[in-house]
Formats: sequence, C-alpha cells, structure tokens
Amino acid sequence: MNFPDPGLLSINTATVRAQWTLPEAISALARHGIRGISPWRDQVAKSGAKTAAQQIRDAGLTVTGLCRAGMFPAPDRNGRRAALDDNRRAVDEAAMLGAQCLVVIGGGLPKDARGAIVSKDLAGAREMVRDGIGELLDYARGAGVPLAIEPLHPMYAADRACVNTLAQANDLCDELAPNGREGLGIAVDVYHVWWDPHLKAQIERAGAHDRLYAYHICDWLVPTVDLLNDRGMMGDGVIDLRLIRSWMEAAGYRGMHEVEIFSANNWWKRDGDEVLITCKLRHEQAS
Amino acid sequence: MNFPDPGLLSINTATVRAQWTLPEAISALARHGIRGISPWRDQVAKSGAKTAAQQIRDAGLTVTGLCRAGMFPAPDRNGRRAALDDNRRAVDEAAMLGAQCLVVIGGGLPKDARGAIVSKDLAGAREMVRDGIGELLDYARGAGVPLAIEPLHPMYAADRACVNTLAQANDLCDELAPNGREGLGIAVDVYHVWWDPHLKAQIERAGAHDRLYAYHICDWLVPTVDLLNDRGMMGDGVIDLRLIRSWMEAAGYRGMHEVEIFSANNWWKRDGDEVLITCKLRHEQAS
Repeated sequence: MNFPDPGLLSINTATVRAQWTLPEAISALARHGIRGISPWRDQVAKSGAKTAAQQIRDAGLTVTGLCRAGMFPAPDRNGRRAALDDNRRAVDEAAMLGAQCLVVIGGGLPKDARGAIVSKDLAGAREMVRDGIGELLDYARGAGVPLAIEPLHPMYAADRACVNTLAQANDLCDELAPNGREGLGIAVDVYHVWWDPHLKAQIERAGAHDRLYAYHICDWLVPTVDLLNDRGMMGDGVIDLRLIRSWMEAAGYRGMHEVEIFSANNWWKRDGDEVLITCKLRHEQAS
Repeated sequence: MNFPDPGLLSINTATVRAQWTLPEAISALARHGIRGISPWRDQVAKSGAKTAAQQIRDAGLTVTGLCRAGMFPAPDRNGRRAALDDNRRAVDEAAMLGAQCLVVIGGGLPKDARGAIVSKDLAGAREMVRDGIGELLDYARGAGVPLAIEPLHPMYAADRACVNTLAQANDLCDELAPNGREGLGIAVDVYHVWWDPHLKAQIERAGAHDRLYAYHICDWLVPTVDLLNDRGMMGDGVIDLRLIRSWMEAAGYRGMHEVEIFSANNWWKRDGDEVLITCKLRHEQAS
C-alpha cells in the first residue's frame, strides 16, 4: 500500500472555522506539526492580511491556497465590475500571503444586489465566468499569483459555481492559458469530482499541461443530510481516496493534500485539537 | 412563445404520493382532464398490477412510464441475481400496465443485505450496471417493454445511481442496443441533467438514435434544503424548462411531459387537487 507522506498534509481553515480564529488555527497547526494551511479571505481580513502573512511565515507554514475568488456572473456591467474589483483584492491578498494559488470558483447564475437569482441563462453565466477569469488572469499574472479553477459539484450549479466538471475547467484553461506555467490551473477537490466518469482522464489531461495546482480531500457521506455543510472526514465515506491520489501522482502532482471539511453537525462541534489529530491520522490511513 | 400542448401533461404519482393512493390518483387525474400517468411499483403492488392496469385503462390514461427498475450493483452473485429477478418482475408489471417504458436507474455502489455500502469501486459498479441492463434487456424485449435509462444527478452517485449523465446513458445504449427502436432508450429528467454543459448535444445524440423515451419535468430550487425530497414546481426554480423542451422537440421527442416532484415540505403537504391544478397551470405557463 502506498501511504502518503505525512509532511504533505495541509489544512484548509474552514475545517476548524467554528473552533478557532486564524491566529489560533496557525498556532494549532504548528503545535501539531502540520506544515500547510489554506485560509479563507474573511479570516485573513479579520487579522489583517499583513499580520496574517507574518504569523503564517513565523509558523513556517506553506500556504497551499487562498479561498477564494470568483463569483463572476452578475446581471449588469456594474455587478461584474464589482466582482472583478473584489477578485483583484483577493489576488493582492494571495500575493501578500505567498499563496501557491488563489482558488477560483465560477459563481452560479447571475444574482441581484440582494442575492436573488435573476436569470436562468446557464450558458450565459458560463460565458461570464470565462470572461471574468480571462480579465482576472492578466492582473494575477502581474502579481505573480497562479489562479486555480476549482470545479464545484453539479449540485452547486445554480448558486455557487457553473464550472462543474474537470473537463470544463480544462476547456477554460485550453482557451485562456493552455500551459499551466502561464498562471492558470486547476484545484481538484475530491468532494466535487469523485463521481465523474471521466475523472481519471481529465486529471491526466490537466497533468499533461502542468495544471494541477492543488488537491483537496475529504469524503462523501451516505447519507448526506445537507448540500453544503455535511462533508465527511477521510475514511468515513465512499470516495476511493487512494485511487484518486494515485491518479494525481501519476499525472505529476507533487503538491500538498489539503483537508477541507465543512461539517456543521460533526467536526465543527468537536474540539479543534481532536479534529487536527484525526486529520493527521486519516490522511495517513485513509487517503 | 411556444407553449406546450396541455394534452401532453402526464403526472408521476410520486408527485401526489403523500395525498392519494393509486386508485385515488387515477380518479383525480381523470377528474382534472389529465391524460398521462406514471405510477411507482409499490403503489401498483398495493392495488395489484391487474387491478391497477384495469383502472388506468378505464380512466383512459396513457402510462408514460413505470418507476422503476435498476439497482443492479451488489457485492455478490446472489445479490445481483436477486436484483435481476426483481427487475424481471418490474418488466412483467410494465407489460401488464401497457407502460410506454420501464424507467431504469443504475443503482449506486454495492450494498449488503442491510443496505450498507460495502465497496468504493465506482467503476466496478458501473460495469455491473452495464451487465445488468444487458441481461434485463433480453427479457424486456421478449415482453415488449422498452427500457428507459434515467441518469440521476451526480449527488446520487453513491447510493442511487452511478449513471449520472446523458453521455453515460448514450454510451450504454451505444454498447447494448444502438438503435432506440431495439428497446433501449433514455428518460431525460430535467432535475438530474439541467446543469450538464453537454445537455443539448447529448439530447441531440439521443434523438438521432430514437432513444428519447420519456421527459420528466420539475424545477431546481435555490436553496435546496434536502438532497432527495425538495424538488420544485415548474417555474419556482432556476431551470430554463422552455429551452430544454425546445431541445427535446428539435431532437424529435413527441411524447408527454411527466411531472415528477418529491416535495416533503411543500407539495406533499398541500391538497392533492391543488397540486394537480398547479401542475396544469405551470405546465402551460412555465414549461
């Protein structure tokens, strides 16, 4: 059995968001000998990006990603401009943090200022995502920040992301920046793509173009009782994590394994140290 | 605007399952001038298939489908044999009802006798589905019952169906019975496939081979609060139903439009007549 290098474990701070502030999470990761972190922008904002960056550097952590930019579709030009402005700020923050990538999700159907969906034009939303990533890419390249498109599960197509498969993400890269060394790549999150009949082929395709920027792990629970916040710990669900990791490695991925678990009824209710200890154990045993 | 022919409305009895028995539903459909029905096997069993068939004939209803066969994967030969036996009974019932098709869903990962998933081999499960459909097809052809593969949303891949896209369903047909007149086709349910970037192309592909056996409608709600029983009435969600119908029609589909809504917190709590009246209205206005 091919066990993963424990040194490749990274923790997305959403996993312990209910327990800890960002400074607390940084200290805890150092305390548990975990060497990677991926924070969320709201947490970074609370600390101040400069302070957060200093704390992460002091703890010796690798920033495997910043979550997240995207949400491009909007019903009018002003809305799209506001999204782009916000995404540029995300690039600046990622640069300050020295993040290996800025995670980009597409956004769903266009929403008005109050958050209500105002269009059913899914193909149009997908065009807005392509245009938005294209515009952001220029800025991100200037800042030296790689953008990682993360396809989200089709159950989020309406409200969060209309890029729902690795094939779509690969197509976007083909169109906007075919070589992964040009600053546009993909974040593979098993939760979103494990079901895809073309998963292996699309990981290979991404790897062949040096697009594999990040690898996120957790598990799919049966039953899943909430569309958003019922992700499982590695080993507690049905995803063949070893198999998917083997595909990532065969495709050339050598980066860290970032644990990202939204879990309102289980892991967010436990002691943060217990969560991290379990992440370490399950990363070795079941990933 | 191209409005649908009201005479093409069919009701999947799951839509009023909380309110009515099958005989009550049959009477109600006749009372409301609705001309199509698609019952579930457990309801048919309660009436007895022969009685149910007679009642449906007496009411002059077209049976747009029988729900459902499938669930092929099992951890051993006995389990797969039991599934096949049950599926053959479903074929017999569909024949007795004069159903236009028997809806077939794949089944998820293999489960033991108590319903616990015992394997993470998704590719293997997909092979079992292919083999199972192949075996069932022989029997179904003998009985004159067309099998309609219904891809289910990727969020059901683990526990209900590992055939999750129209492309997979088309691939299965290509392999097992390329010409739709040979008794193997596809049921297109907008709830499961609306998000698919290749939806239009795969509907065209299915149509080109005479595989479009059934068309199921409802809507995707935002937010969706339950993975199984929170489907929306046409017009209450984000699916561009007119657009998808136009693709079905362009691909040659001339069958009925079957409303299938699982709705624990809304439509199942309302008066059954109100539900049917709303289905009629929304079929015309928003489908």
